Amino acid sequence: MASNASCLFCKIVKREIPAKVLFETEHCLAFLDVGPLSDGHTLVIPKYHAQFLHELPDAEMKDLLPTAKRVAEALGSQNYNILQNNGRLAHQAVDHVHFHVIPKPSEQEGLVMEWKVKETVPDKLESIRKSLLKL
Amino acid sequence: MASNASCLFCKIVKREIPAKVLFETEHCLAFLDVGPLSDGHTLVIPKYHAQFLHELPDAEMKDLLPTAKRVAEALGSQNYNILQNNGRLAHQAVDHVHFHVIPKPSEQEGLVMEWKVKETVPDKLESIRKSLLKL
Repeated sequence: MASNASCLFCKIVKREIPAKVLFETEHCLAFLDVGPLSDGHTLVIPKYHAQFLHELPDAEMKDLLPTAKRVAEALGSQNYNILQNNGRLAHQAVDHVHFHVIPKPSEQEGLVMEWKVKETVPDKLESIRKSLLKL
Repeated sequence: MASNASCLFCKIVKREIPAKVLFETEHCLAFLDVGPLSDGHTLVIPKYHAQFLHELPDAEMKDLLPTAKRVAEALGSQNYNILQNNGRLAHQAVDHVHFHVIPKPSEQEGLVMEWKVKETVPDKLESIRKSLLKL
Protein backbone atom coordinates (compact mmCIF):
# COMPACT_ATOMS: atom_id res chain seq x y z
CA MET A 1 0.00 0.00 0.00
CA ALA A 2 1.57 3.28 -1.13
CA SER A 3 1.50 5.85 1.65
CA ASN A 4 3.18 9.21 2.12
CA ALA A 5 4.25 10.17 5.65
CA SER A 6 3.78 13.90 5.03
CA CYS A 7 0.38 13.62 3.28
CA LEU A 8 -2.64 14.98 5.16
CA PHE A 9 -5.02 12.41 3.67
CA CYS A 10 -2.66 9.49 4.33
CA LYS A 11 -2.64 10.63 7.96
CA ILE A 12 -6.45 10.60 8.00
CA VAL A 13 -6.43 7.08 6.51
CA LYS A 14 -4.09 5.97 9.32
CA ARG A 15 -6.23 7.83 11.90
CA GLU A 16 -3.26 9.99 12.88
CA ILE A 17 -5.51 13.02 12.23
CA PRO A 18 -9.21 12.90 13.11
CA ALA A 19 -11.93 13.23 10.48
CA LYS A 20 -15.69 12.91 10.35
CA VAL A 21 -15.74 9.52 8.63
CA LEU A 22 -18.92 8.37 6.89
CA PHE A 23 -17.84 5.14 5.19
CA GLU A 24 -14.76 2.97 4.92
CA THR A 25 -14.03 0.06 2.58
CA GLU A 26 -10.96 -2.02 1.85
CA HIS A 27 -9.65 0.54 -0.64
CA CYS A 28 -11.24 3.87 0.25
CA LEU A 29 -12.47 6.26 2.89
CA ALA A 30 -15.29 8.84 2.84
CA PHE A 31 -15.28 11.77 5.27
CA LEU A 32 -16.78 15.25 5.53
CA ASP A 33 -14.77 18.09 3.97
CA VAL A 34 -13.72 20.59 6.68
CA GLY A 35 -13.98 23.37 4.07
CA PRO A 36 -17.40 22.56 2.59
CA LEU A 37 -19.04 24.32 -0.35
CA SER A 38 -22.42 23.15 1.02
CA ASP A 39 -23.64 21.14 4.02
CA GLY A 40 -22.79 17.46 3.52
CA HIS A 41 -19.82 18.13 1.18
CA THR A 42 -17.87 14.88 1.42
CA LEU A 43 -14.51 13.61 0.15
CA VAL A 44 -14.05 10.06 -1.11
CA ILE A 45 -10.39 9.05 -1.32
CA PRO A 46 -8.41 5.95 -2.20
CA LYS A 47 -6.28 4.69 0.69
CA TYR A 48 -3.43 4.29 -1.79
CA HIS A 49 -1.38 7.47 -2.10
CA ALA A 50 -1.33 8.90 -5.63
CA GLN A 51 -1.18 12.58 -6.49
CA PHE A 52 -3.16 12.38 -9.74
CA LEU A 53 -5.90 10.11 -11.05
CA HIS A 54 -3.60 9.00 -13.87
CA GLU A 55 -1.12 7.71 -11.26
CA LEU A 56 -3.66 5.60 -9.36
CA PRO A 57 -3.60 1.86 -10.18
CA ASP A 58 -6.92 0.61 -11.57
CA ALA A 59 -7.26 -1.92 -8.73
CA GLU A 60 -7.25 0.93 -6.21
CA MET A 61 -10.15 2.70 -7.97
CA LYS A 62 -12.87 0.11 -7.69
CA ASP A 63 -14.49 1.21 -4.41
CA LEU A 64 -14.51 4.94 -5.22
CA LEU A 65 -17.68 5.34 -7.29
CA PRO A 66 -19.76 2.80 -5.34
CA THR A 67 -18.78 4.72 -2.19
CA ALA A 68 -19.57 8.10 -3.80
CA LYS A 69 -22.96 6.59 -4.62
CA ARG A 70 -23.48 5.57 -0.97
CA VAL A 71 -22.66 9.15 0.01
CA ALA A 72 -25.17 10.48 -2.53
CA GLU A 73 -27.80 8.10 -1.18
CA ALA A 74 -27.10 9.31 2.36
CA LEU A 75 -27.39 12.93 1.20
CA GLY A 76 -30.79 12.10 -0.24
CA SER A 77 -30.62 14.85 -2.88
CA GLN A 78 -31.01 14.51 -6.65
CA ASN A 79 -28.83 17.57 -7.21
CA TYR A 80 -25.12 17.08 -6.55
CA ASN A 81 -21.76 17.23 -8.30
CA ILE A 82 -18.94 14.70 -8.25
CA LEU A 83 -15.62 16.47 -8.85
CA GLN A 84 -12.02 15.34 -8.88
CA ASN A 85 -9.34 17.96 -9.55
CA ASN A 86 -5.86 17.23 -10.87
CA GLY A 87 -3.12 19.87 -10.67
CA ARG A 88 -2.98 23.35 -9.15
CA LEU A 89 -4.44 24.99 -12.26
CA ALA A 90 -7.43 22.65 -11.92
CA HIS A 91 -7.90 23.61 -8.24
CA GLN A 92 -6.29 20.56 -6.62
CA ALA A 93 -5.26 21.66 -3.10
CA VAL A 94 -4.20 18.37 -1.47
CA ASP A 95 -1.84 16.14 -3.45
CA HIS A 96 -3.70 12.89 -2.82
CA VAL A 97 -6.49 11.89 -5.23
CA HIS A 98 -9.90 12.87 -3.81
CA PHE A 99 -13.43 12.95 -5.17
CA HIS A 100 -15.68 15.71 -3.91
CA VAL A 101 -19.37 14.84 -3.50
CA ILE A 102 -20.98 18.27 -3.31
CA PRO A 103 -24.71 18.75 -2.65
CA LYS A 104 -26.26 21.48 -4.82
CA PRO A 105 -29.24 22.79 -2.83
CA SER A 106 -29.47 26.12 -4.69
CA GLU A 107 -27.87 28.20 -7.46
CA GLN A 108 -25.66 30.02 -4.96
CA GLU A 109 -24.59 27.07 -2.77
CA GLY A 110 -22.39 24.11 -3.62
CA LEU A 111 -20.28 24.06 -6.76
CA VAL A 112 -20.68 27.26 -8.79
CA MET A 113 -19.36 26.93 -12.34
CA GLU A 114 -19.10 28.91 -15.51
CA TRP A 115 -19.82 26.82 -18.59
CA LYS A 116 -18.21 28.56 -21.53
CA VAL A 117 -18.43 26.20 -24.52
CA LYS A 118 -15.78 26.64 -27.19
CA GLU A 119 -16.98 26.89 -30.75
CA THR A 120 -15.93 23.79 -32.56
CA VAL A 121 -16.50 21.97 -35.84
CA PRO A 122 -16.57 18.23 -36.68
CA ASP A 123 -13.27 18.49 -38.58
CA LYS A 124 -11.54 19.91 -35.53
CA LEU A 125 -12.98 17.19 -33.28
CA GLU A 126 -11.73 14.55 -35.71
CA SER A 127 -8.23 16.02 -35.72
CA ILE A 128 -8.25 16.10 -31.89
CA ARG A 129 -9.41 12.48 -31.82
CA LYS A 130 -6.61 11.40 -34.13
CA SER A 131 -4.08 13.37 -32.13
CA LEU A 132 -5.18 11.80 -28.82
CA LEU A 133 -5.10 8.29 -30.28
CA LYS A 134 -1.80 9.01 -32.07
CA LEU A 135 -3.38 7.96 -35.39
CA MET B 1 -28.78 -3.89 -20.30
CA ALA B 2 -30.96 -0.89 -19.47
CA SER B 3 -31.38 1.36 -22.50
CA ASN B 4 -33.70 4.27 -23.26
CA ALA B 5 -34.87 4.65 -26.86
CA SER B 6 -35.17 8.44 -26.62
CA CYS B 7 -31.81 9.01 -24.88
CA LEU B 8 -29.11 10.75 -26.90
CA PHE B 9 -26.28 8.87 -25.20
CA CYS B 10 -28.00 5.47 -25.55
CA LYS B 11 -28.21 6.24 -29.30
CA ILE B 12 -24.48 6.96 -29.34
CA VAL B 13 -23.81 3.66 -27.53
CA LYS B 14 -25.87 1.84 -30.19
CA ARG B 15 -24.10 3.84 -32.95
CA GLU B 16 -27.43 5.26 -34.12
CA ILE B 17 -25.84 8.72 -33.78
CA PRO B 18 -22.17 9.26 -34.69
CA ALA B 19 -19.60 10.36 -32.12
CA LYS B 20 -15.85 10.82 -31.98
CA VAL B 21 -15.14 7.69 -29.96
CA LEU B 22 -11.82 7.37 -28.14
CA PHE B 23 -12.25 4.17 -26.12
CA GLU B 24 -14.84 1.46 -25.62
CA THR B 25 -15.00 -1.29 -23.00
CA GLU B 26 -17.62 -3.87 -22.05
CA HIS B 27 -19.43 -1.38 -19.80
CA CYS B 28 -18.52 2.09 -21.02
CA LEU B 29 -17.76 4.41 -23.91
CA ALA B 30 -15.52 7.50 -24.12
CA PHE B 31 -16.07 10.12 -26.82
CA LEU B 32 -15.30 13.79 -27.44
CA ASP B 33 -17.84 16.31 -26.14
CA VAL B 34 -19.33 18.27 -29.06
CA GLY B 35 -19.65 21.29 -26.74
CA PRO B 36 -16.14 21.31 -25.23
CA LEU B 37 -14.91 23.65 -22.50
CA SER B 38 -11.37 23.04 -23.77
CA ASP B 39 -9.75 21.02 -26.56
CA GLY B 40 -9.86 17.32 -25.71
CA HIS B 41 -12.92 17.62 -23.41
CA THR B 42 -14.19 14.04 -23.32
CA LEU B 43 -17.25 12.26 -21.91
CA VAL B 44 -17.01 8.82 -20.31
CA ILE B 45 -20.39 7.14 -19.97
CA PRO B 46 -21.73 3.81 -18.75
CA LYS B 47 -23.54 1.87 -21.50
CA TYR B 48 -26.26 1.16 -18.97
CA HIS B 49 -28.91 3.89 -18.94
CA ALA B 50 -29.29 5.60 -15.57
CA GLN B 51 -30.17 9.24 -15.07
CA PHE B 52 -28.22 9.75 -11.84
CA LEU B 53 -25.09 8.21 -10.34
CA HIS B 54 -27.15 6.95 -7.40
CA GLU B 55 -29.31 4.96 -9.85
CA LEU B 56 -26.38 3.22 -11.56
CA PRO B 57 -25.71 -0.37 -10.38
CA ASP B 58 -22.23 -0.80 -8.90
CA ALA B 59 -21.36 -3.47 -11.48
CA GLU B 60 -21.91 -0.93 -14.28
CA MET B 61 -19.44 1.53 -12.72
CA LYS B 62 -16.26 -0.47 -12.78
CA ASP B 63 -14.86 0.60 -16.16
CA LEU B 64 -15.59 4.31 -15.72
CA LEU B 65 -12.57 5.53 -13.73
CA PRO B 66 -10.01 3.28 -15.44
CA THR B 67 -11.32 4.65 -18.75
CA ALA B 68 -11.23 8.26 -17.50
CA LYS B 69 -7.61 7.54 -16.57
CA ARG B 70 -6.88 6.29 -20.10
CA VAL B 71 -8.37 9.53 -21.42
CA ALA B 72 -6.20 11.57 -19.03
CA GLU B 73 -3.14 9.64 -20.17
CA ALA B 74 -4.03 10.35 -23.81
CA LEU B 75 -4.47 14.05 -23.01
CA GLY B 76 -0.98 14.03 -21.51
CA SER B 77 -1.71 16.94 -19.16
CA GLN B 78 -1.31 17.05 -15.38
CA ASN B 79 -4.06 19.65 -15.11
CA TYR B 80 -7.60 18.39 -15.68
CA ASN B 81 -10.93 18.04 -13.92
CA ILE B 82 -13.20 15.01 -13.69
CA LEU B 83 -16.81 16.14 -13.23
CA GLN B 84 -20.11 14.32 -13.06
CA ASN B 85 -23.26 16.42 -12.61
CA ASN B 86 -26.55 15.15 -11.20
CA GLY B 87 -29.74 17.15 -11.64
CA ARG B 88 -30.58 20.37 -13.48
CA LEU B 89 -29.49 22.56 -10.56
CA ALA B 90 -26.09 20.85 -10.71
CA HIS B 91 -25.78 21.51 -14.47
CA GLN B 92 -26.75 18.06 -15.77
CA ALA B 93 -27.94 18.59 -19.36
CA VAL B 94 -28.31 15.00 -20.67
CA ASP B 95 -30.20 12.56 -18.46
CA HIS B 96 -27.71 9.70 -18.78
CA VAL B 97 -24.80 9.51 -16.31
CA HIS B 98 -21.65 11.00 -17.84
CA PHE B 99 -18.23 11.90 -16.54
CA HIS B 100 -16.55 14.93 -18.07
CA VAL B 101 -12.76 14.77 -18.44
CA ILE B 102 -11.85 18.42 -18.98
CA PRO B 103 -8.30 19.56 -19.72
CA LYS B 104 -7.33 22.73 -17.83
CA PRO B 105 -4.64 24.41 -19.96
CA SER B 106 -5.09 27.88 -18.44
CA GLU B 107 -7.11 29.86 -15.89
CA GLN B 108 -9.59 30.97 -18.54
CA GLU B 109 -10.04 27.66 -20.40
CA GLY B 110 -11.64 24.42 -19.25
CA LEU B 111 -13.72 24.26 -16.09
CA VAL B 112 -13.98 27.65 -14.38
CA MET B 113 -15.24 27.41 -10.81
CA GLU B 114 -15.92 29.60 -7.85
CA TRP B 115 -14.85 28.01 -4.58
CA LYS B 116 -16.81 29.66 -1.80
CA VAL B 117 -16.14 27.70 1.38
CA LYS B 118 -18.85 27.86 4.04
CA GLU B 119 -17.73 28.68 7.54
CA THR B 120 -18.16 25.65 9.65
CA VAL B 121 -17.29 24.28 13.09
CA PRO B 122 -16.51 20.73 14.28
CA ASP B 123 -19.81 20.52 16.19
CA LYS B 124 -21.75 21.27 13.03
CA LEU B 125 -19.78 18.68 11.03
CA GLU B 126 -20.51 16.09 13.72
CA SER B 127 -24.23 16.84 13.63
CA ILE B 128 -24.19 16.55 9.80
CA ARG B 129 -22.32 13.24 10.07
CA LYS B 130 -24.88 11.85 12.50
CA SER B 131 -27.74 13.07 10.35
CA LEU B 132 -26.31 11.44 7.20
CA LEU B 133 -25.70 8.15 8.98
CA LYS B 134 -29.10 8.36 10.74
CA LEU B 135 -27.38 7.96 14.14
